[in-house]
Amino acid sequence: MNVSALLTSAAINIGVCVLLLSLYSVLRKQPSNLSVYFGRRLHQALPRRHDPPRFERFIPTPSWILKAWETPEEEILAIGGLDAIVFLRIIIFSLRVFSVATFVCVFLVLPVNYYGQEMHHKQIPSESLEVFTIENVKEGSRWLWAHCLALYIITCSACLLLYVEYKNISTMRLEYIKASSPNLSQFTVLVRSIPWSEQKSYSDSVFAFFSKYHGNSYLGHQMVYWCGTIRKLVTDAQKICSGVSSEDFSNKCKHLLNCGFCGGSAKTFRVLSKESESVKDNVFYRDLDATIKEKPLLFKQEVPAAFVFFRTRFAACVAAETLQSSNPMLWVTDFAPEPHDIYWSNLCIPYRQIWIRKIVTLLTTAVLMFLFLIPVTFVQGLTHLEQLQQAFPFLKNILEKKFINQVVTGYLPSVILLLFLLAVPPIMMAFSSVEGSVSRSGRKKSACCKVLYFVIWNVFFVNVLSGSVISQISVFSSPKSIPTQLAKAVPTQASFFMTYIFTSGWAGLSIELIQPLPLIYNLITRHILRRKDEACNWSYSFPYHTEVPRVLLFGHLGFTFSILAPLMLPFLLCYFLFALLVYRNQILNVYITKYEGGGQIWPAVHNCTIFSLVLTQIIGLGVFGLKLSTVGAGFMIPLIILTLLFNEYCRKRFSPIFKNTAAQVLIDLDQEDERCGRLQEIHQQLPSAYCQLTVSSHEFRPAGYNTPTSRDSSQRNSSSTPGTSLGTVDPFVDSESQPHKLEREPYAKFSNLVNK
Amino acid sequence: MNVSALLTSAAINIGVCVLLLSLYSVLRKQPSNLSVYFGRRLHQALPRRHDPPRFERFIPTPSWILKAWETPEEEILAIGGLDAIVFLRIIIFSLRVFSVATFVCVFLVLPVNYYGQEMHHKQIPSESLEVFTIENVKEGSRWLWAHCLALYIITCSACLLLYVEYKNISTMRLEYIKASSPNLSQFTVLVRSIPWSEQKSYSDSVFAFFSKYHGNSYLGHQMVYWCGTIRKLVTDAQKICSGVSSEDFSNKCKHLLNCGFCGGSAKTFRVLSKESESVKDNVFYRDLDATIKEKPLLFKQEVPAAFVFFRTRFAACVAAETLQSSNPMLWVTDFAPEPHDIYWSNLCIPYRQIWIRKIVTLLTTAVLMFLFLIPVTFVQGLTHLEQLQQAFPFLKNILEKKFINQVVTGYLPSVILLLFLLAVPPIMMAFSSVEGSVSRSGRKKSACCKVLYFVIWNVFFVNVLSGSVISQISVFSSPKSIPTQLAKAVPTQASFFMTYIFTSGWAGLSIELIQPLPLIYNLITRHILRRKDEACNWSYSFPYHTEVPRVLLFGHLGFTFSILAPLMLPFLLCYFLFALLVYRNQILNVYITKYEGGGQIWPAVHNCTIFSLVLTQIIGLGVFGLKLSTVGAGFMIPLIILTLLFNEYCRKRFSPIFKNTAAQVLIDLDQEDERCGRLQEIHQQLPSAYCQLTVSSHEFRPAGYNTPTSRDSSQRNSSSTPGTSLGTVDPFVDSESQPHKLEREPYAKFSNLVNK
Repeated sequence: MNVSALLTSAAINIGVCVLLLSLYSVLRKQPSNLSVYFGRRLHQALPRRHDPPRFERFIPTPSWILKAWETPEEEILAIGGLDAIVFLRIIIFSLRVFSVATFVCVFLVLPVNYYGQEMHHKQIPSESLEVFTIENVKEGSRWLWAHCLALYIITCSACLLLYVEYKNISTMRLEYIKASSPNLSQFTVLVRSIPWSEQKSYSDSVFAFFSKYHGNSYLGHQMVYWCGTIRKLVTDAQKICSGVSSEDFSNKCKHLLNCGFCGGSAKTFRVLSKESESVKDNVFYRDLDATIKEKPLLFKQEVPAAFVFFRTRFAACVAAETLQSSNPMLWVTDFAPEPHDIYWSNLCIPYRQIWIRKIVTLLTTAVLMFLFLIPVTFVQGLTHLEQLQQAFPFLKNILEKKFINQVVTGYLPSVILLLFLLAVPPIMMAFSSVEGSVSRSGRKKSACCKVLYFVIWNVFFVNVLSGSVISQISVFSSPKSIPTQLAKAVPTQASFFMTYIFTSGWAGLSIELIQPLPLIYNLITRHILRRKDEACNWSYSFPYHTEVPRVLLFGHLGFTFSILAPLMLPFLLCYFLFALLVYRNQILNVYITKYEGGGQIWPAVHNCTIFSLVLTQIIGLGVFGLKLSTVGAGFMIPLIILTLLFNEYCRKRFSPIFKNTAAQVLIDLDQEDERCGRLQEIHQQLPSAYCQLTVSSHEFRPAGYNTPTSRDSSQRNSSSTPGTSLGTVDPFVDSESQPHKLEREPYAKFSNLVNK
Repeated sequence: MNVSALLTSAAINIGVCVLLLSLYSVLRKQPSNLSVYFGRRLHQALPRRHDPPRFERFIPTPSWILKAWETPEEEILAIGGLDAIVFLRIIIFSLRVFSVATFVCVFLVLPVNYYGQEMHHKQIPSESLEVFTIENVKEGSRWLWAHCLALYIITCSACLLLYVEYKNISTMRLEYIKASSPNLSQFTVLVRSIPWSEQKSYSDSVFAFFSKYHGNSYLGHQMVYWCGTIRKLVTDAQKICSGVSSEDFSNKCKHLLNCGFCGGSAKTFRVLSKESESVKDNVFYRDLDATIKEKPLLFKQEVPAAFVFFRTRFAACVAAETLQSSNPMLWVTDFAPEPHDIYWSNLCIPYRQIWIRKIVTLLTTAVLMFLFLIPVTFVQGLTHLEQLQQAFPFLKNILEKKFINQVVTGYLPSVILLLFLLAVPPIMMAFSSVEGSVSRSGRKKSACCKVLYFVIWNVFFVNVLSGSVISQISVFSSPKSIPTQLAKAVPTQASFFMTYIFTSGWAGLSIELIQPLPLIYNLITRHILRRKDEACNWSYSFPYHTEVPRVLLFGHLGFTFSILAPLMLPFLLCYFLFALLVYRNQILNVYITKYEGGGQIWPAVHNCTIFSLVLTQIIGLGVFGLKLSTVGAGFMIPLIILTLLFNEYCRKRFSPIFKNTAAQVLIDLDQEDERCGRLQEIHQQLPSAYCQLTVSSHEFRPAGYNTPTSRDSSQRNSSSTPGTSLGTVDPFVDSESQPHKLEREPYAKFSNLVNK
């Protein structure tokens, strides 16, 4: 591939991008596409913009770019939560580090590569791309110190920036924990693997255990039931209520809630005042017991899992972190996810299965990673046209045409790869569901890591060590030769990865903007099926599990190719700049925040970046070995060691914050709440926080009950008071500003779709 | 090597063993050797046995074997603590599993090996040992199912026994925790990395932090000081007291203790009653503050580490297990070791250094492991006499003599290896000290693991993959060929490892019995230097860090050679039987229990056994591959997977018990103590529990003060009430039976050697 082929590819993609951006700019102005491009605003029922006149609607304008650029970080934090900020920080970090890398590599490394050998240089457009890579530097060249220095500068700036980001995100996480308070999940512990007893129900066991061992701080609990049971009950309730007038609704609901399910009524859950009443003479349990005895069906369908509520955050933290029983497979406690974050159906999985499920999904993921080699090998064949011509002789005539040749070598492989890669995230998401994660954010994080391993292996390694399955595995069966093998293979693939940046990177971002699937769905439902309501409600959360690995993959490419093929860096820098604008826009307009992961993804990002850095250094080691520069190779080893030590330090210094919350922070919050007298109020909200029984608003909204759905109202709260209600999607959290809300809760609880 | 050479080697070693055992039987009867062979009894000042008449003293008798055999496990538990029991359980587990293996392999595998090829068998004595190994089975033999079946039986019995042992030891550990109560370390938390502040001393910071965040349960604390300071103070105190009469002693001591060091006097430490007094108006701190201001030197020499005391065990557990500060490198809490278990000088190491120290020692250990290859390669050369003859032609005549040949090939290599290996445990112990372990038991456990890796690598792998350094590393650089390489190499080394069992195993045990070094030291001090007192006091604790790896290495050899060279198993069984007797005798008579590790070593033992099993299966995979038995190789893969799954299950099920104590257990203990009113008493003992300032009894015993030293008395307690005082070497623990002890403590505290 020569420079003109590269520029052809770049031109095609820039053309596609400009076209798509113009299309986006027009499409977003059409009122009928409101649900596609302004899903979040629609979902939160924000005041509608003034629609432009009919003529202006068809002229592309760059106003969205300005809006995305200008929006301050605080607003994004309030809208997208900490996860969105962390995601944008990945892009900003990449922008910063690759600005440094581009500067160093373009002005220092690129000239060394270009003039690396005494040769007659052709004109730039017809110059082969290999002339710009390290392959052009002759063996034993004295100018290899430039590569060594560049690698040192890149590593140092990356480590420095990583440290700063990790520190910032830790601070943000702490602030999030403080600001999201009162967050009812902080008072709640998820207990699993409750031991079975002949005499007692699970609920009684939980009561007996926690009132004995955590009597001072234990408030109450709520059992988890089989999802099938819940679904059946909801259907029954719907049948009953379907013929009932709105006046009777309230009473019916109260009866339904009285079944002891969600403890939502005053009868089944009572907050004990700290001084006067002991847990033992709690009427709550006697009541629940009576309820259960009346309903033997329900008693049988309890799952050995429960949410246990505590008086203070610290007490909940203690219960979650300490080992409860001398058999570690019983009474397994953990922090409860936020109510909207719970993945209910996985709560029904017996705890004993979890470890084996994890191992099985890990193995299946590994198998899938290797099976995926088949399409990748095919794609790789396309860049070696000679092989393809040999295999299919009838293609010879077509492929000899220059333009088709350029398109096939420069464009087609990455498009095919892209299409195959589209199938991966849903599969990994399914694996993560099977794995047994109890929270949606945990499931997404797990899927994100799986997709990340997958793309790094299947896009980077497999393409680099191109060829058959066997040749790739045989490379890894001799660890000593890995640096040399990589050093030989990586620079040859520079042209492929540059076109990959154009297709998967630039064009991928434009497609992300256009949102083709929702657009088509919207068109079909609106203009063919003529169902307007359904299209309106189609909103979804940010797909971190596809976007984080994608951005990290480009970062990985940037690091590994930085000194080998510096020509890639400017294109990459364009990608990150474009990505920042696009994702900011999408977070502001399209995606809704259903739950908050609390920035838990950052440690994985950090580890991935360190992996990329170390791999770059290992490749550097191989390159200096190949180029017979012992000094350069010698300088790589301390760099690798220092990078690993830096990682170890960050792991010690920051990663515990992402696993647990510090006692200091929790106790400070508890003490502040106690001083303000807010604790009592929180205790009263707890019983209704974790309700398994919820029905969607439009599925089951009684006639005449016209207040907005609870989620809507909370979302509106959070956007109107960005400072205090950061990331609060929990309708029962932000109650300070709405003291009247508690009375409305039995109704609100029916207003969401059955969580599955 | 043929059978007669093996028998020569066995005969030499049996002769040596019988000789040494007879010698031991005679030596132990000599009253002058009492301190060598009855160190524990002497140390605990147990009543002296009736000395036999002069004539009988010189006749060897097997009475000690009977005694060692008959002693019940409860008595050993009371004497040696849980660690001793866990150690003996390793041997019993090995005995059981290798009984099964011997039965299966001798009656099923050995005949298959022997008749594996159609050949003319010589007479047994002149038959080569190779005829008994798997090398004799011809390729593609149908009888290889016998090996496969044997491996399945061995794996299943080993896993079953491992599970039973893990369960038993977990139960024993729980019982130990319950029985050792009131154990003051359960109420204590070690805080490190206290942040430095300009305005406050470390002590004030600790008080401010814990009274704010753990105010309900915080009792008090005790700072750690630079060891140099402590040592100087003790020297000063010795100087002062050396000229003082016994009447003045008590007052002088009180003044010394008042310096705020160990909080031993009523002035510097006061237990708050739970109801009436808050921590804030505690006079303790104002007092200490005044003391510190009087002694600016002391203030400067505080270390940012402290022992913090809590009201209940559960509160201490909570403080130890939760993350305290939002900076995880500050206020690092952990369970405090038992007072006698503390390794004081490591408490002075800044916490920030710990992680880097661990990495450095890990790397140094790895380097040492590879440097050790030099002597091992030399030893290995001795078994290949031809190479030696080529290198040193002048040896040719000597080596051609049959007896010398047999001695050199069968005996010398393992003796040389043994001598080199003797240097390893002290080096590893030094590494573990540098690593920064805060407890002696932790240091020993860490050294134990290091020695274990070392011997498995240097005795097993290096000898098996015999040859130069490069050839060994090159084997591991191609992971795919490891099973085949091992399958080729392991059976050829069977003869070497059989002689290793004779020398390092049998003869090693006899030498352990004889205790040559203490014996020589005793002879020199007693008969040449004529100092009787000094010899008397020479007692030391059980060297787990050398003996556990040794026993596990033999287990490893047993597993890996079980189906390859079944002839080894009967010899190994003899070793384990002999080991059981010898170690029981040594625990009963020789070693004293200075501190209790609580059976923490078992998870490492379990992992090592699983490693041996999996390695055996991998070798089996290689063997079946070499012998062209695809069915056999196919059966190995599920066996490996099942063994790894079993290990994972055990890790989930049992290992948390060895890291933390269950809340259930601690709260039960707390509640029982509170019911009995014992808690108040424990709180009064706490201040004096962790005293950095201690002087040995005979170094600093005032005239006229003739009661036994505190450690003696507690040891006597523990042996007289084996049930309740299990493993209590802490003089201040077993106070229930001695209510008058508290008053004696200021004196008692001076009665031990300065802990370093």
